[in-house]
Amino acid sequence: MVEEAKLLGTWASALNGRIEIALKLKGIRYENIEEDLSNKSALLLKYNPVHKKIPVFVHNGKPVAESLVILEYIDETWKDHPILPKHPYDRAIARFWAKFVDEKILQTLKKARGAKDEELQKIIEEAGEQMKILENELKGKDFFGGETIGYLDIVTFSVAYWFQVQLEVLGVKFLTEEKFPVVCKWIGRLLDIDVVKSCVPPREKHVAYIKTLIEKDARAASK
Amino acid sequence: MVEEAKLLGTWASALNGRIEIALKLKGIRYENIEEDLSNKSALLLKYNPVHKKIPVFVHNGKPVAESLVILEYIDETWKDHPILPKHPYDRAIARFWAKFVDEKILQTLKKARGAKDEELQKIIEEAGEQMKILENELKGKDFFGGETIGYLDIVTFSVAYWFQVQLEVLGVKFLTEEKFPVVCKWIGRLLDIDVVKSCVPPREKHVAYIKTLIEKDARAASK
Repeated sequence: MVEEAKLLGTWASALNGRIEIALKLKGIRYENIEEDLSNKSALLLKYNPVHKKIPVFVHNGKPVAESLVILEYIDETWKDHPILPKHPYDRAIARFWAKFVDEKILQTLKKARGAKDEELQKIIEEAGEQMKILENELKGKDFFGGETIGYLDIVTFSVAYWFQVQLEVLGVKFLTEEKFPVVCKWIGRLLDIDVVKSCVPPREKHVAYIKTLIEKDARAASK
Repeated sequence: MVEEAKLLGTWASALNGRIEIALKLKGIRYENIEEDLSNKSALLLKYNPVHKKIPVFVHNGKPVAESLVILEYIDETWKDHPILPKHPYDRAIARFWAKFVDEKILQTLKKARGAKDEELQKIIEEAGEQMKILENELKGKDFFGGETIGYLDIVTFSVAYWFQVQLEVLGVKFLTEEKFPVVCKWIGRLLDIDVVKSCVPPREKHVAYIKTLIEKDARAASK
């Protein structure tokens, strides 16, 4: 049987980027299916009827949703270049922090786009405190996974990098060299990896897209 | 080396029950360390400094927090009586639904204790709609895991059973035979398993405990 792998997502999504990095690290060929989130496709509604959200990974016709679940599926299905650590305890720790990234940092940063002034500042502070905990976890290591990029690097990078761009467009400083020297060096280290670089949206296109979202928010708010 | 396994938790906690069922199914000997959540122990703060929450599983001195992460750790560490399915796709589906239970159903039901009248009714309806999705998933099967109790059974049962007791104390009907025939039969099937029965709090003690929580809430609200 010829393997068929498809990724339903959008080029600008951090969670999509997460899956792309894992697939490319493992050298898996897949087809990107670009979704229009303002007009979701019948395919997306069929494959993720519960949440109706991207990314959805479809392997030989069978869909998997939720980015952390997809990452585990990919790692268990294609054994080359494992992304989760080998030892059960290290795996548990990686999963613990991935949950922290998605349930704390990501949820905090998601509120940034609709916020202004003091409210925005408060969000940045909260996300900063959460990020500081990860900065401490990373101290003395090149990657969360140890000597090379792994599961928690992919999970954290997608949130840290994508939102850093968004916050820059909003005119806010988040992950500065002074406050987050370890995380900033680590982001640079990840961007030096060809696979990672190839999964990051082209900067100008990304910035332009975020600006259209902000304008859309502003129009909706003034109605 | 003699294995040392400890579980920091409280007897009345649904998430604690989750870990106990898994440990007992696998025949792992462990020590229960009862926490007083109104006065958290130094041990809990040391072992889960990020969330300061139970349950925490400590294996040979090394802590793991977050109940779903603990379940995966236990399953990877002790191979007897596997709780997660074998095939990567089935594992992904089980993880997807476990996330749904914790992020949707559990979060909805958590709001019930503080709510009254219309608000409470709305919460019950919302949780009911979410539970209905799982009822449909379970149709035609004895257990989510197939022929025997597995990961998703443990995860869902802890929420369904524990909150069913709480809602009864609040005087609300939730999982009725008429609306949830499949789930109700499945709860009965699980309670027929000795290990599961032994992990469920004694009913009178459980009800009395919930009543004290409700009185405490009422006192706090009237201040």
